[in-house]
Amino acid sequence: MPRLRLALAQMNPVVGSVDANTDAVVEQARAAHAAGAHLFVTPEMVLTGYPIEDMAYRATFIEASRAAVAALATRLVDEGLGDLVVVVGHLDTAKDATLANLPDRLGVPKNQPTNSASVVTGGRVVARYDKHHLPNYGVFDEFRHFVPGDETQVVQVKGVDVAIAICEDIWQDGPSAAADAAEAGLLVVLNGSPYEAAKDDTRLELCARRAREGQCALAYVNMVGGQDELVFDGDSIVVDSGGELVARAGQFVEELVVVDLDLPAATAPMPEPGTRFHGLRVERTIVSTDHAEPVAEPLRPEPAERWDDAGERYQAIVLGLRDYVRKNGFRTVLMGLSGGIDSTLVGAIAVDALGPENVFGVSNPSAWSTEHSLGDAGELARRTGLTLDNVPIAGIFDTFQESLHLDGLAEENLQARIRAVIWMGLSNQHGHLVLACGNKSELATGYSTIYGDAVGGYAPIKDLPKTLVWELSRWRNAWAEQRGETPPIPENAISKEPSAELRPGQLDSDSLPPYELLDAVLDAYVERDLGATEVIAEGFDPALVERVVTLVDRAEYKRRQYPPGPKVSRRNFGRDRRLPITTRWRESL
Amino acid sequence: MPRLRLALAQMNPVVGSVDANTDAVVEQARAAHAAGAHLFVTPEMVLTGYPIEDMAYRATFIEASRAAVAALATRLVDEGLGDLVVVVGHLDTAKDATLANLPDRLGVPKNQPTNSASVVTGGRVVARYDKHHLPNYGVFDEFRHFVPGDETQVVQVKGVDVAIAICEDIWQDGPSAAADAAEAGLLVVLNGSPYEAAKDDTRLELCARRAREGQCALAYVNMVGGQDELVFDGDSIVVDSGGELVARAGQFVEELVVVDLDLPAATAPMPEPGTRFHGLRVERTIVSTDHAEPVAEPLRPEPAERWDDAGERYQAIVLGLRDYVRKNGFRTVLMGLSGGIDSTLVGAIAVDALGPENVFGVSNPSAWSTEHSLGDAGELARRTGLTLDNVPIAGIFDTFQESLHLDGLAEENLQARIRAVIWMGLSNQHGHLVLACGNKSELATGYSTIYGDAVGGYAPIKDLPKTLVWELSRWRNAWAEQRGETPPIPENAISKEPSAELRPGQLDSDSLPPYELLDAVLDAYVERDLGATEVIAEGFDPALVERVVTLVDRAEYKRRQYPPGPKVSRRNFGRDRRLPITTRWRESL
Repeated sequence: MPRLRLALAQMNPVVGSVDANTDAVVEQARAAHAAGAHLFVTPEMVLTGYPIEDMAYRATFIEASRAAVAALATRLVDEGLGDLVVVVGHLDTAKDATLANLPDRLGVPKNQPTNSASVVTGGRVVARYDKHHLPNYGVFDEFRHFVPGDETQVVQVKGVDVAIAICEDIWQDGPSAAADAAEAGLLVVLNGSPYEAAKDDTRLELCARRAREGQCALAYVNMVGGQDELVFDGDSIVVDSGGELVARAGQFVEELVVVDLDLPAATAPMPEPGTRFHGLRVERTIVSTDHAEPVAEPLRPEPAERWDDAGERYQAIVLGLRDYVRKNGFRTVLMGLSGGIDSTLVGAIAVDALGPENVFGVSNPSAWSTEHSLGDAGELARRTGLTLDNVPIAGIFDTFQESLHLDGLAEENLQARIRAVIWMGLSNQHGHLVLACGNKSELATGYSTIYGDAVGGYAPIKDLPKTLVWELSRWRNAWAEQRGETPPIPENAISKEPSAELRPGQLDSDSLPPYELLDAVLDAYVERDLGATEVIAEGFDPALVERVVTLVDRAEYKRRQYPPGPKVSRRNFGRDRRLPITTRWRESL
Repeated sequence: MPRLRLALAQMNPVVGSVDANTDAVVEQARAAHAAGAHLFVTPEMVLTGYPIEDMAYRATFIEASRAAVAALATRLVDEGLGDLVVVVGHLDTAKDATLANLPDRLGVPKNQPTNSASVVTGGRVVARYDKHHLPNYGVFDEFRHFVPGDETQVVQVKGVDVAIAICEDIWQDGPSAAADAAEAGLLVVLNGSPYEAAKDDTRLELCARRAREGQCALAYVNMVGGQDELVFDGDSIVVDSGGELVARAGQFVEELVVVDLDLPAATAPMPEPGTRFHGLRVERTIVSTDHAEPVAEPLRPEPAERWDDAGERYQAIVLGLRDYVRKNGFRTVLMGLSGGIDSTLVGAIAVDALGPENVFGVSNPSAWSTEHSLGDAGELARRTGLTLDNVPIAGIFDTFQESLHLDGLAEENLQARIRAVIWMGLSNQHGHLVLACGNKSELATGYSTIYGDAVGGYAPIKDLPKTLVWELSRWRNAWAEQRGETPPIPENAISKEPSAELRPGQLDSDSLPPYELLDAVLDAYVERDLGATEVIAEGFDPALVERVVTLVDRAEYKRRQYPPGPKVSRRNFGRDRRLPITTRWRESL
């Protein structure tokens, strides 16, 4: 049985930075080669970054990506890495044969872009696979941006047949079955698979199932890092043909995993031209047939430990914020610190992501701010080392009111907007990125001020319902205690009753149902997309459901009228372009 | 040759208002029946409104749409309209046979929604067609939201074979060819086709070409009205089998077109079960075979006159604004009136859309506002009758600066943001929708203040480059003169040099290239999606291109960091969800 030494590069590319991404691939390939690897695999679209959205259509960008693949082949040889077999993800343009086979009913995006993986070795591109299944749901728009491939690529490396798939290809039926039929010994899968909360261990289960179905080992290489609206969590996996876990990379960290696999020698003959499995043409390329039998213990690094549910969410938010700041050319952030739990948690997250020297808080007390609010913000600053400034708003508020004479909600919102003007002024003057501190329960119900507390370039906890804001705050403090550190979050910020403090004695519970109930209904109506009648059928009080649904629908209208606020996503962490379901239509209850 | 009296209902449905839309269909059907029509055709998805985006996935919404079709069938009989043959657009769920035929590589959206047209007559739904070609480019996301149909429906009405298609189906090859092969005498096409500037007469040319290809008459029924980001322009068309224009509805108005067509009698036999044309199963239904030969002159209404290019754009903006305000439950609008041409044109448009009694302007002079600015805003108010208020900002500005001490750009932005706080305060107090007055040249280059002049729920002229702002202003005044009315726009607002007036003596030309050049480069780089090297190849000065591309890319970053501003679309009028090309990647020039 031939032994293959496989290197999986769990990398963090930057969308659009083709040169820097290529440099990073070469660096990882160098390390893999030094570790004696034969086969080196990157994440999906590592050369361009992912997701590239409508940049896929730009001819000059496609050309830059193609040129980067060719340059990579040459550079690997120049650096003495020419014998390494590299499978690299990139943007390309569809093959003529693929275009000729497209069903009549499918449109073709401009310049025929493809989501591709090239096999590069010996200074040449020896094979290219184009992703078949283009996901078009949730955060994915790939069917819009790419032409689907219609070939299966099998490459013989050191006497082992290696098949290739990209991400969604193994979530749908098709290519892994084709890999099986093509009798491959190993299926390598390049991924840009974003983190989802409470996904359980779906990926490992899927990899194990596909390995057993295909009767071949499977190596799943994922991207890591925050990119725009998404956070990729890494967690790359290798399983054997029985579906048993062989290796696993960490979550939310860059890592190179090198592992030995003993795999069946290739025996399948070259297929007849035009052979098809599951509707896909099979292409076969021989890179190297020589192989050595194992003589020593195989290299088997210990699988990485995984975070628990709360830890996973917290790390996803920290990484998403850090990369958003860095990839957009910022260094420092600024946020309003009210002493409430939302902005307090955001302050702690920002310090974890960027270091205390890069985090700036502002307290903006009004006539109705309570003493403990200022005290709690100050306590957070003392514990974490972030810089806290104080700009009271009462005088500015009075000057506005001399002209405007607003009352009620308009008067409440005025205070929130004055604060936002101050944050943005400091942002423009000093170059800080403003963070919005709203949580998902608030944003979904519209319990926030457009152009007020909703202001900011990034909203770290916008995917956390209020009940999870409390849970992650407690988790963060407990994690500090485990490590013998000072818990960053003042206990009073966690335990006090939530209030917007925009009028005397105001409490969230004046306007909203208790958060435990609210979050449960939001989970059904927003996350799980149920209709109101279906939510009631789950056993919730009809009056409560009617109240929450009305709040969400009105908030949705408000967001539409005033696009600004951070958008509420469903399950995906990080940022999300898509609004929750458009609630223009009201069911009669 | 049988004569068919055809009624096309160019309607303006509201997304989500299933009951009101159904009522409107019945009302139009009543008028069509009274006019002696045999066949009545609505626009695409008229019962649910269009586009419904991710509401397509909600099971209870699909059910409501299906129930509306069934209720419509009953109601037509109850109202004595049971003999009318109604082709009505709606949301449905895919047929089992269609799902079984889907290619392996295509995902299926949740609850299998379809974009459908049902044939309703005699109290029953006798046939249902599902759209085949689901556009997935520009403003369309249909492949994401719907399952494609795989049947061609031919329905015999009064002895004439009538085939059905929906919108994109005739822009791609396929169904019209199938209609030809099925030997239909008439192809009816239900549309939700948005207005595009400078589209020329593409639709008439396409209808004529498909009619000649299919050797059958073609009736193209379009939606009209503003819906969210889109404006539908109507302009429904009937051509004969030679491609000659027979009837045409007006642009930007609701209308019922009734016309007589002399068409070949159906001769094709019922097809064998399983017959396919162009990959589509052919279904044939006989509603009525009886027909009378023509005895009098056919009913042939005069085709509507069309607007010229500038008039078309102006009417599209007026209708888009009117429907956005109305469909979102507002009645009045408020905008900052600086005396500059952008806000002046928006004021004139708002008065045309909503009447002067519903339009409120605010002047917010600063220490650096010029005399003529206030004078020009006042002159607009006198000419149009809108209400103008005056809230100076110098005092508020000074109070902010006592705490903040901002300078440079931060100080300029502070003024713009104070204005926005005033507008939003008045909006919250009085219920006005705030209009943002930025033009496309400004927005594309980032020459505006996030949370300042970019604030607003709707941005009427965000698709107009500055040179077109001037052109439409002149057009509006000339149109008034033609009709013997007072030109609404003060001449000085058109002729003076553009300035943001955020520092003494400031002019746009300090920061931007001359607008004629700027707009030409923006057209190439943003509208036509060319790479920078391709723009230079068109003959523009490389230094100018470099400057504009840098401005656009930086503005794009700014929009990403601060999502709020109205987004810049490409060719579509109204609002557009999509950003221009994501410019994370910079070409080396």
